[in-house]
Amino acid sequence: MSLIQKSLKRVLKATAMVAAMAFVTTSATADDTVYRLKLAETWGPNFPIFGDATKNMAKMAEEMSNGRLQIRIDSANKHKAPLGVFDMVKSGQYDMGHSASYYWKGKVPNTLYFTSMPFGMLPTEQYAWFYYGGGMELMEKVYSPHNLLSFPGGNTDTQMGGWFQKEIKSVDDLQGLKMRIPGFAGEILAELGAKPTNIAPGELYTSLERRTIDALEWVGPSLDLRMGFHKIAPYYYTGWHEPGTELQFLINKRAWDRLPDDLKAILQVAMKTAAYDMYTQSKHESGKNWASIQSEYPDVQVKDFPPEVISALREANERLLKVHAEKDALAKEIQESQANYIEQVRPWSNISHRAYLNSQAQQ
Amino acid sequence: MSLIQKSLKRVLKATAMVAAMAFVTTSATADDTVYRLKLAETWGPNFPIFGDATKNMAKMAEEMSNGRLQIRIDSANKHKAPLGVFDMVKSGQYDMGHSASYYWKGKVPNTLYFTSMPFGMLPTEQYAWFYYGGGMELMEKVYSPHNLLSFPGGNTDTQMGGWFQKEIKSVDDLQGLKMRIPGFAGEILAELGAKPTNIAPGELYTSLERRTIDALEWVGPSLDLRMGFHKIAPYYYTGWHEPGTELQFLINKRAWDRLPDDLKAILQVAMKTAAYDMYTQSKHESGKNWASIQSEYPDVQVKDFPPEVISALREANERLLKVHAEKDALAKEIQESQANYIEQVRPWSNISHRAYLNSQAQQ
Repeated sequence: MSLIQKSLKRVLKATAMVAAMAFVTTSATADDTVYRLKLAETWGPNFPIFGDATKNMAKMAEEMSNGRLQIRIDSANKHKAPLGVFDMVKSGQYDMGHSASYYWKGKVPNTLYFTSMPFGMLPTEQYAWFYYGGGMELMEKVYSPHNLLSFPGGNTDTQMGGWFQKEIKSVDDLQGLKMRIPGFAGEILAELGAKPTNIAPGELYTSLERRTIDALEWVGPSLDLRMGFHKIAPYYYTGWHEPGTELQFLINKRAWDRLPDDLKAILQVAMKTAAYDMYTQSKHESGKNWASIQSEYPDVQVKDFPPEVISALREANERLLKVHAEKDALAKEIQESQANYIEQVRPWSNISHRAYLNSQAQQ
Repeated sequence: MSLIQKSLKRVLKATAMVAAMAFVTTSATADDTVYRLKLAETWGPNFPIFGDATKNMAKMAEEMSNGRLQIRIDSANKHKAPLGVFDMVKSGQYDMGHSASYYWKGKVPNTLYFTSMPFGMLPTEQYAWFYYGGGMELMEKVYSPHNLLSFPGGNTDTQMGGWFQKEIKSVDDLQGLKMRIPGFAGEILAELGAKPTNIAPGELYTSLERRTIDALEWVGPSLDLRMGFHKIAPYYYTGWHEPGTELQFLINKRAWDRLPDDLKAILQVAMKTAAYDMYTQSKHESGKNWASIQSEYPDVQVKDFPPEVISALREANERLLKVHAEKDALAKEIQESQANYIEQVRPWSNISHRAYLNSQAQQ
């Protein structure tokens, strides 16, 4: 090999090295890798508000990451397991989930506390508990043994007490009352002699119309309007059992750990914002839909449960909670944290929002 | 030049081109450029809650952008112009601002409507108006002629009516009342015979203690506690004049246009989240501080203004608003949008939060 040939070879080698170094620099500083996460949601495709929250989250993540974080959303029609989200994310079959924490209480009893509790917090009171009052840390204690991260996933606003065919004037009127009301609230009503039942959403309208059931609860005007219950039930009761229902984003911890720090930050902020946005949207949709119900069905009567009924429900709630707390130290810790937080924040809610709304309603 | 020399030269040229191309590729796909924005805030350094919102926003932007978006925050001690933020951002002296829209009403009257209006919306009602009820579009109409973008910047929660030395039992008690209450609310009180004054924050405590003034309003327990007014005034009145005070992020439009799309998305989401977070933090701090005032100063009495006084304030408010609407078509459009939105959302707030808080307070 001549000297000239050697020089040429060195130059060519240098060329390749410079080019390689340049690309290494690119990938080390900016990390152009596209991360793809799969999310399973409990809801069907295009489910209003709940489904908007996952789409909003995925869109923010994609735009903020310049396409480096892609989240594919599978609705229940695709994965066929609306109440299998916890297991599918835990096992890694999905990286993320969008659901509600209290759906998992049969599996992990302490997941009950992170959606909304009877006689519990209003939406922003609860956000304050999550982010400033120790709620996130307690939620982590419950979820981390399952290799899961859990974050607030969007608020429905205060849920209504439900649609009733008959007026509830006393605790006696709850005796034998057939009501679609699932979960912990159903257990409370059962304590007072009601007969809570669970019925598939598609059969609710007919069941209420034909008096197979006497009452049902769904969400609030935001989602009740399209179910049509206002056409067939005269009484709409105000809420007690879910004052601030918060949905949930779940993440598999291994999928989370694989993300670079900037995408972790993007994902966390996208989830937080989508959750807050869903509360804002729920407020808007409930306002709009309640106005529409009132104008088209002016005979619908809004009723508060009598104080005697509320007291009885509250006592039953406390009895049931006590059973949980006696069996489980972490349940006790969470219950106490929530009770103490309400004791701290509620007097403020009373001299601010309650005073203002009462004063304005008098005018 | 020999053939060999020519070959070498071509190879060296190719080397340079490959290297250059590699770097061009880096900057085109990932854009490692660091964008530095300067933000002027109306508040002093380390001002609680308000100042936390700007720090929170800048931190999220930095983390999500992997350091590509750096926001330097200058507090009022640095730029010396707390009420010059609008002009400094408009001129491009600063890229961003954090302040409150109603501070600019002397300059641009229609900026009045985007903070909180007397007898107006609660915080989440107002977020719903901004994001789903046309509020953002109206705010853009007001700010875009000034080359500015404006976004919600954090909520203080419902402001209290203020600290009073004397009880207000009738409209007559407002005659000659010397009260520190700036802005539009002060104009309303003046209509009813009160003497609104403005006093520097550092002199408020002494003025109220020595009865140079009879009353003052500040914010709510979140920020009132450290001012110490509860030590020297017996009555704390509930709110009417700022039910949901929202601060503001301002951006110079040229500075905004220079950002690549992903950093625009990051900045917009960081501002939105910091605003929502500030509302959550305000709820927490007011709850905590009100609990502390109640336990240390149990003699502080919370009072509602009598319905007769509220009616008179409301009528004065409507008279003053009408004057604005008659002079300015956009003022009329904004006023109508807000009034219609309250008419739509408030019945929902009443059957949800009001019903719930009243029912819980009876127990």
